[in-house]
Amino acid sequence: MPKKAKERKRKKHDTNEKETPKSIAKRLKGIADSVVADIKKSRDPEFITQQRGRSNVQFNEKKGILQLGEKETTRTFLNVGHARKFMQTMLVNAKTYEYLKHNKTASIREIYYELKHTVPNSKENTFEAQEESNSVIVDLEHSVDTIREKLNLHANPKGTLYGDITLRDKMHHNDRFNCSKLGRGGWSIMSRIEPEEIEIVSCNAKYVLVIETEAMYERLVEEQFAKKNKCILISTGGQAARGTRRLIHRLHTERKLPTIVFTDGDPFGWYIYSVIKQGSMALAAHSDFLACPDATYVGMTLDDIETYGLQTVTEKMKEGDIKRAKEMLAYPWFQNKPWQNQLKKAIREKVRIEQQALANKSLEFVATEYLPQKIKKKDFLP
Amino acid sequence: MPKKAKERKRKKHDTNEKETPKSIAKRLKGIADSVVADIKKSRDPEFITQQRGRSNVQFNEKKGILQLGEKETTRTFLNVGHARKFMQTMLVNAKTYEYLKHNKTASIREIYYELKHTVPNSKENTFEAQEESNSVIVDLEHSVDTIREKLNLHANPKGTLYGDITLRDKMHHNDRFNCSKLGRGGWSIMSRIEPEEIEIVSCNAKYVLVIETEAMYERLVEEQFAKKNKCILISTGGQAARGTRRLIHRLHTERKLPTIVFTDGDPFGWYIYSVIKQGSMALAAHSDFLACPDATYVGMTLDDIETYGLQTVTEKMKEGDIKRAKEMLAYPWFQNKPWQNQLKKAIREKVRIEQQALANKSLEFVATEYLPQKIKKKDFLP
Repeated sequence: MPKKAKERKRKKHDTNEKETPKSIAKRLKGIADSVVADIKKSRDPEFITQQRGRSNVQFNEKKGILQLGEKETTRTFLNVGHARKFMQTMLVNAKTYEYLKHNKTASIREIYYELKHTVPNSKENTFEAQEESNSVIVDLEHSVDTIREKLNLHANPKGTLYGDITLRDKMHHNDRFNCSKLGRGGWSIMSRIEPEEIEIVSCNAKYVLVIETEAMYERLVEEQFAKKNKCILISTGGQAARGTRRLIHRLHTERKLPTIVFTDGDPFGWYIYSVIKQGSMALAAHSDFLACPDATYVGMTLDDIETYGLQTVTEKMKEGDIKRAKEMLAYPWFQNKPWQNQLKKAIREKVRIEQQALANKSLEFVATEYLPQKIKKKDFLP
Repeated sequence: MPKKAKERKRKKHDTNEKETPKSIAKRLKGIADSVVADIKKSRDPEFITQQRGRSNVQFNEKKGILQLGEKETTRTFLNVGHARKFMQTMLVNAKTYEYLKHNKTASIREIYYELKHTVPNSKENTFEAQEESNSVIVDLEHSVDTIREKLNLHANPKGTLYGDITLRDKMHHNDRFNCSKLGRGGWSIMSRIEPEEIEIVSCNAKYVLVIETEAMYERLVEEQFAKKNKCILISTGGQAARGTRRLIHRLHTERKLPTIVFTDGDPFGWYIYSVIKQGSMALAAHSDFLACPDATYVGMTLDDIETYGLQTVTEKMKEGDIKRAKEMLAYPWFQNKPWQNQLKKAIREKVRIEQQALANKSLEFVATEYLPQKIKKKDFLP
């Protein structure tokens, strides 16, 4: 019977941008080395990671972001309930180590397919569904205090960039391109926007405007809003993908550009804003890489309906929206008067207002009046 | 009592690329002029459009595309059942005429919001939901034999372009950009890709590879597939958006580039292919603008599972997939042996295989073996 290791604690690492693929690879190897050492000493191998789930999510008031608390989870190989996950963790650990060594990247679906096989002399598959590998990837991110992007993994890309910003792709012929010179289409934001690969060479803008819908983004491009207002436009196409959040975060921290968010006036849109600003509960461990605590919200608000006479173009809120608003009312990061007012108004009046409803005034209205006026007066929600 | 106009027929127009915003605007005005003339002569104003719906959809064997038949619908203003739609059609007609005159474009959501208002001295709104304006837009497209893009309307954009192709955006500082020099992100395909606005300046490629998933597109970019195989990569991100279909169609017709389609091996993926190739039933009137009748299909096929030993990475088909396969079995444009075999196999074996499952061989396999070998041997489905 192997000895139980004496109570160990997870080694904590700084979560910062100075990590290199080499330093991350070293941490992955550290986990493997410690498992090998345990085996050699006839000890039950252990894997320690941070506990996730709501009970370990905290709102850091000072930093203005969501974070994970101190709780940890230890998994041991000789525990029958842990053995399968332990094996899966080692597979993902070894594979991402290999990606980092050979400068390869993979989608989380690809790594699932790449690692799926039948264990020799058994009928057992290494993975049965992608949820299993996804969950192990999160364990690993949390164990080595990094984000999957730095393990060379990524999810699907989504989001578009337009404006006077020059990027350089160090991994692709050192391409340099200015995102105001790609016609009206703009640059398709990659799934991974890590500084080791994508450099922000220059950026001639006063702020970043983040837009929920692709159609509103196209409207603002057509109206030459970016040029006239010296700003960068980023469309998220709904909830922002990780690559898009990384880019917004980098413009916020590296370039100190104010982040102004423009979504539909409903709980779904407001939550998109809060994820960009404070981070999300599911990714609370990664807010240092993803959040923009100084972001502000320009609209749509329910007050806009009266201010701009949009009563004929509101929409009725669905039950799910109202339920969402009630949940958000209780979140610590919505505990301020302006947002409490918005949420209560939504619950009371049961109406929502879309960005594109501003077309009721005229197609140009959003670009020539609504946004410039609100931004000039700093008529923002916090 | 106004006289009934004598039986009229819709004026048919050639559907071709030589139309200009001016010639389309003239047709819109023609409709309005005829309504005014009817009123002046105390006749009941009429609006004639093509009948849509399955019963008027035909598969043109010779051209290899879906088309609308000869059936027409006549709407009269003094018919109580038609009056509301008649009014809506006139509103959309006038507004799109204005867009064309002033070189503005709008999303179909924007035109809905722009035109929605309460009719003076009544409680009646011009539109209650976007479905109403959408339906009128289709009537108008069908009436003047054009596509909404040429009425300066568009839906949301989706899709990405990568490769040695230079585009020029005539409406945006005449930007010229080469889509192999934008890093690995690529160009975000606009919602409207009309020749009057976006010119294909040059294209150094032997074929166009159309890819269903964004993640597979990123894989092929990372593997430098476009450069090594002299091709253009277009990702559709699921069912192709209209802008993306227009671009594929233009590369097919203007540049005579073979179109090779690469989707997941399931009825959903195969239908994406057939929409690109023959057009869709919903847009049967527009196949001349959207379809690529010479397109071929490279994979995934269910035979690939055995050929490449992918048995451990298949997925079970859902009930909906099986139902879809049974419907497709009956479509005239799937009446050939290879597709009948695929569909029957799908129904029999109830498995599907994803593009990304090829990662089970290795991440590079799709780029270094699967695609080059199949394309070299012309191992295609028709």
